[in-house]
Amino acid sequence: MARIRAAIINVTGYIGVDMARILLRHPEVDLVCVTGRSAAGKRLSEVFPHLTDSDLVIKPDLDCPADVVFSAMPHKASAEVCAPLVTQGLKVIDVSADFRLKSREEYEQWYEVEHPCPQLLDSAVYGLPELHRDEIARARLVANPGCYPTGALLALAPALSAGMTDGDIIIDSKSGVSGAGRSLTLTTHFAECNESVAAYSVGGHRHMPEIRQECRRLEPRVSELMFVPHLVPMTRGILSTCYVRLAAGWLAGRGDPEKAVGEMYRDFYRGSIFVDVVDASPATKHVWGSNYCHVYPGYDARTGRLLCISAIDNLVKGGAGEAVQNMNLMCGFRESCGLDALPVYP
Amino acid sequence: MARIRAAIINVTGYIGVDMARILLRHPEVDLVCVTGRSAAGKRLSEVFPHLTDSDLVIKPDLDCPADVVFSAMPHKASAEVCAPLVTQGLKVIDVSADFRLKSREEYEQWYEVEHPCPQLLDSAVYGLPELHRDEIARARLVANPGCYPTGALLALAPALSAGMTDGDIIIDSKSGVSGAGRSLTLTTHFAECNESVAAYSVGGHRHMPEIRQECRRLEPRVSELMFVPHLVPMTRGILSTCYVRLAAGWLAGRGDPEKAVGEMYRDFYRGSIFVDVVDASPATKHVWGSNYCHVYPGYDARTGRLLCISAIDNLVKGGAGEAVQNMNLMCGFRESCGLDALPVYP
Amino acid sequence: MARIRAAIINVTGYIGVDMARILLRHPEVDLVCVTGRSAAGKRLSEVFPHLTDSDLVIKPDLDCPADVVFSAMPHKASAEVCAPLVTQGLKVIDVSADFRLKSREEYEQWYEVEHPCPQLLDSAVYGLPELHRDEIARARLVANPGCYPTGALLALAPALSAGMTDGDIIIDSKSGVSGAGRSLTLTTHFAECNESVAAYSVGGHRHMPEIRQECRRLEPRVSELMFVPHLVPMTRGILSTCYVRLAAGWLAGRGDPEKAVGEMYRDFYRGSIFVDVVDASPATKHVWGSNYCHVYPGYDARTGRLLCISAIDNLVKGGAGEAVQNMNLMCGFRESCGLDALPVYP
Amino acid sequence: MARIRAAIINVTGYIGVDMARILLRHPEVDLVCVTGRSAAGKRLSEVFPHLTDSDLVIKPDLDCPADVVFSAMPHKASAEVCAPLVTQGLKVIDVSADFRLKSREEYEQWYEVEHPCPQLLDSAVYGLPELHRDEIARARLVANPGCYPTGALLALAPALSAGMTDGDIIIDSKSGVSGAGRSLTLTTHFAECNESVAAYSVGGHRHMPEIRQECRRLEPRVSELMFVPHLVPMTRGILSTCYVRLAAGWLAGRGDPEKAVGEMYRDFYRGSIFVDVVDASPATKHVWGSNYCHVYPGYDARTGRLLCISAIDNLVKGGAGEAVQNMNLMCGFRESCGLDALPVYP
Repeated sequence: MARIRAAIINVTGYIGVDMARILLRHPEVDLVCVTGRSAAGKRLSEVFPHLTDSDLVIKPDLDCPADVVFSAMPHKASAEVCAPLVTQGLKVIDVSADFRLKSREEYEQWYEVEHPCPQLLDSAVYGLPELHRDEIARARLVANPGCYPTGALLALAPALSAGMTDGDIIIDSKSGVSGAGRSLTLTTHFAECNESVAAYSVGGHRHMPEIRQECRRLEPRVSELMFVPHLVPMTRGILSTCYVRLAAGWLAGRGDPEKAVGEMYRDFYRGSIFVDVVDASPATKHVWGSNYCHVYPGYDARTGRLLCISAIDNLVKGGAGEAVQNMNLMCGFRESCGLDALPVYP
Repeated sequence: MARIRAAIINVTGYIGVDMARILLRHPEVDLVCVTGRSAAGKRLSEVFPHLTDSDLVIKPDLDCPADVVFSAMPHKASAEVCAPLVTQGLKVIDVSADFRLKSREEYEQWYEVEHPCPQLLDSAVYGLPELHRDEIARARLVANPGCYPTGALLALAPALSAGMTDGDIIIDSKSGVSGAGRSLTLTTHFAECNESVAAYSVGGHRHMPEIRQECRRLEPRVSELMFVPHLVPMTRGILSTCYVRLAAGWLAGRGDPEKAVGEMYRDFYRGSIFVDVVDASPATKHVWGSNYCHVYPGYDARTGRLLCISAIDNLVKGGAGEAVQNMNLMCGFRESCGLDALPVYP
Repeated sequence: MARIRAAIINVTGYIGVDMARILLRHPEVDLVCVTGRSAAGKRLSEVFPHLTDSDLVIKPDLDCPADVVFSAMPHKASAEVCAPLVTQGLKVIDVSADFRLKSREEYEQWYEVEHPCPQLLDSAVYGLPELHRDEIARARLVANPGCYPTGALLALAPALSAGMTDGDIIIDSKSGVSGAGRSLTLTTHFAECNESVAAYSVGGHRHMPEIRQECRRLEPRVSELMFVPHLVPMTRGILSTCYVRLAAGWLAGRGDPEKAVGEMYRDFYRGSIFVDVVDASPATKHVWGSNYCHVYPGYDARTGRLLCISAIDNLVKGGAGEAVQNMNLMCGFRESCGLDALPVYP
Repeated sequence: MARIRAAIINVTGYIGVDMARILLRHPEVDLVCVTGRSAAGKRLSEVFPHLTDSDLVIKPDLDCPADVVFSAMPHKASAEVCAPLVTQGLKVIDVSADFRLKSREEYEQWYEVEHPCPQLLDSAVYGLPELHRDEIARARLVANPGCYPTGALLALAPALSAGMTDGDIIIDSKSGVSGAGRSLTLTTHFAECNESVAAYSVGGHRHMPEIRQECRRLEPRVSELMFVPHLVPMTRGILSTCYVRLAAGWLAGRGDPEKAVGEMYRDFYRGSIFVDVVDASPATKHVWGSNYCHVYPGYDARTGRLLCISAIDNLVKGGAGEAVQNMNLMCGFRESCGLDALPVYP
């Protein structure tokens, strides 16, 4: 198979640069162009010394032919940049939120901007490979999921698709600080967030409608769900603790509930190389720096609730790695190609 | 008022040594004796260099007269040490779990030991000053609450006592690592818990029955609750995120729900100097190193649930500070005496 | 003694707000005014929730009578604000660098601005109480030392003043991130500095001439010294590791070198309540949140060098606490008044 | 070339398990056996959940044929285990200190044990590939360097081998906590080392004679050197700040000193793929999780000293990665084979 030419638009954020890290070592890809307004003209390895042996220079705009383009632009700007590329027939993976919500109204309500190209919403595929593998393989435009939705949906999908739940779902997520991006804010200033944990966006976070949309596709009984994100003093990782009420009668005739739930989860993820259904409560450290996700399906006998917990690296499986996984599917490569590095522990 | 002579049994754990820190500067107290088996014979300031100007030597056992004794022994051993002191008429504050649960059966089930002196369970007072201030003032034996129960109960008490809830309660707590104590474990080894977050004791944590007991005293409709603790890579602090379903009809006729809930909370804590009902989601950093607790009573319109969040320093309000607050009440001192240092930020 | 009215100009930086924390609990002081341009009009406790029970409102400018004024303005602006206050007869403690260097030329070279009021340089006193206690007590204008100079000078002063050294001095300092202030920079963005350590200002840091000036006052043989600061992923603390060559012959006739050096250090700091000469290599955690400094005077037999290490909290002994200690001396209070809280450990 | 069968003796420490992480993805190697007494009988992926897809079971002892053996046993035990393997003709890489020091006396003095097989000291090769590449390629027994020596020697080697220095060398190193290993100690208990920095082993660290030995091989004028290690609250990374006095006259006729030094360094490391000579002071984050080393050769004009700083990941370039690099050389693979993953940033 011929090598693929890839480009990253706006390489200077954390997901952008982590895509560069992965693509620079991808065996089937040449990273031919990276763009970034503020750092244009500088060598990539000067701005990011860890990309030590790259000769790429950051360009103001995409300026050479490419087969696949990753956009890490902010929302709205990203759609504007992606639309003409899709039209030109390139494969496009959009890391922004622009094509994740199927409803234009919902998008405009939560992101408070007009959608620049709503005509692409129908054909865009929500890029969670474990749920939409086949559609992704045929897509021209993939909307890479948000970091929280990736973790929450991987924890919930088997329960939802099996009809285990009655639709009452609470998701309490704990994220490392890199999830807030590379832009400077007081919230992400070291002395402010170190030695502290706090909830944020308690009035409603933009990832909620995205999680809700995918939950409803799997289980129409989901009407509303509660999602509360927290900031934790670490760089990478998201732990999503999900509290799910079982549908009445689901347990009847299934024997040991914990075991029944576990089997359901293992069946669901057979064939999903990056998801490990684990027997013990997972830690984000167990997936640090990798594209793996650990999912623990627990059952609380006292309350009859499911306690589903997932751990991901928010920048890899929750961002750059998932984007490359989508590219692999779109280009017909092995799904784990360039992504099989094991987590770095400790 | 004459100065009080205080002693700490087992000063070498984190709550023990934090009581020493506070008592060494308490204006009404002389710390006359500290004990600790493993470090007996050493100067306190040698084992704990931050207690820089103390001349105390760590003793193997209590060896001088005292008016108040704080026990920071492990459970079971603590009750054994406290019982004779209570009999002698000393004021005793037990930091262990031995006298927290009113039901001997529940204690023996969760702690898997026989209770050494069940006859004291009736007269022991659960030392959460904001709930039991008057009883504490008259008590001879106070059971200092666990760190998680302190945070969870301060978040929930107003809602429970006002009959706002239907009894369906989920508590998702995030604790700093000092909560796991000073004993060495792989879980609290720096390289293992740094850059990681994980849930633990998912099958049931010993603080659950303690929280449940106090919740039921405030609201008999509470049958079961779900409590999931998490370990977060910071030294001090507990954030408790509580999801509470409103009792049917509670909102009727009360106007804006958020405002109604907020007023209820503020009324409840009027007169409680260490609890601040805050308007924005709190951070543990805002109470670091202090006896203060920040409580945020939120209302999620989409799901109709309360979202009550509390932040405490697990070793102070969740341990050593609360113990001294109890001592102040028992001895007739100002409740905040020796405890009014502001949090250290950042 | 009548209570003192104190004001803080520019309370919104880390040293400014830490002075507020200390002064709000100081037994001899009323904090009557705090200023801050960006947050003017807001309640202090809204901007800084840890200052939970303060009713102060942040003012755009000093607008009420005060006896002592602390300026935490940036350099140059601080001198401009302080000069008229000194003329009015107020006691002024300047936390900026404006009055630390005695040489106007050196100041203008290192800070690259014209000094706004060089006429005050002569009468300003360098506010390191352990070196200049009596002068500070008589001063109208005190230049509060930099954080690095405080730590380095406390480690070196006894050796320098005893003529132990030949003037060859290397200072390798490790600072927590709060030392870089509350202004947003990429360097202090959590994801950038967490899990990383790096040297900075390797071409020359502004605190070097300050350290050099005070070293030369104690030991004229000091010509040049090497000072390399490092950023360490923690919030508070500075450890200064100082490598000092002994003057030829100094050891002759003094018996065990380690013991001789230790005695010299202990003698020097007798009467300095905040400096502890310790027997083992200190940790910044041992002084966290306090005005204490631990100094370890070691001797390396293999190379014949002194290895002097000091640990401070950069915002307290290296900033806000030292400023209040200076105020205590200027106002005739007990030197440790309002400052004797023990370090918060762990 | 046929695939190589590799084994790891004592996989349960941090360097052991990091070798497993790398070897499980090495394109030329089959990891056929891992041993570990305490965890024998368990699956590797149960003890280390990040090694998610490995089927290996931890064995009590090496129990199958192998071509290369990595020993991560503690010192003394390691030599005892390695000696017969060398005799059998296997390639052996010893991660312990047993074969690093060429002098048996020095070994026995610093490690306080009798050397179990001094007869192997002569043929063992010190495994710093950048200094001893050719010898390593021919070796049967490689002594993998300590983490501090790796960082310090890479910072110093060009200066020493060029005769730039007069032999007066100070090395101030800052290490992440994983360097202290996986065994539980109070020093590495999270609450003790988080938010703290401290020097340790100030009386002399075992890595000093190792650094000194290699320095003297490069520059006989080195008599004694001063090495002070520090513990920094991060998991991975070592920054070594080296202060080196220039040999008299070295600068004469060489033009700009900074430039001359930089060129010397770049020349020295031409051909060393893992060492990057950088223009700005490096951060350990720039090499996190990788086998790369960044070296900054600075010149301090005021004191005429070199300021050489290196950054490595202590577990990779300072341990597991270097061991695999040595294996690559011994087996005739490309030096970077299986090791070219870029650092994980942020």
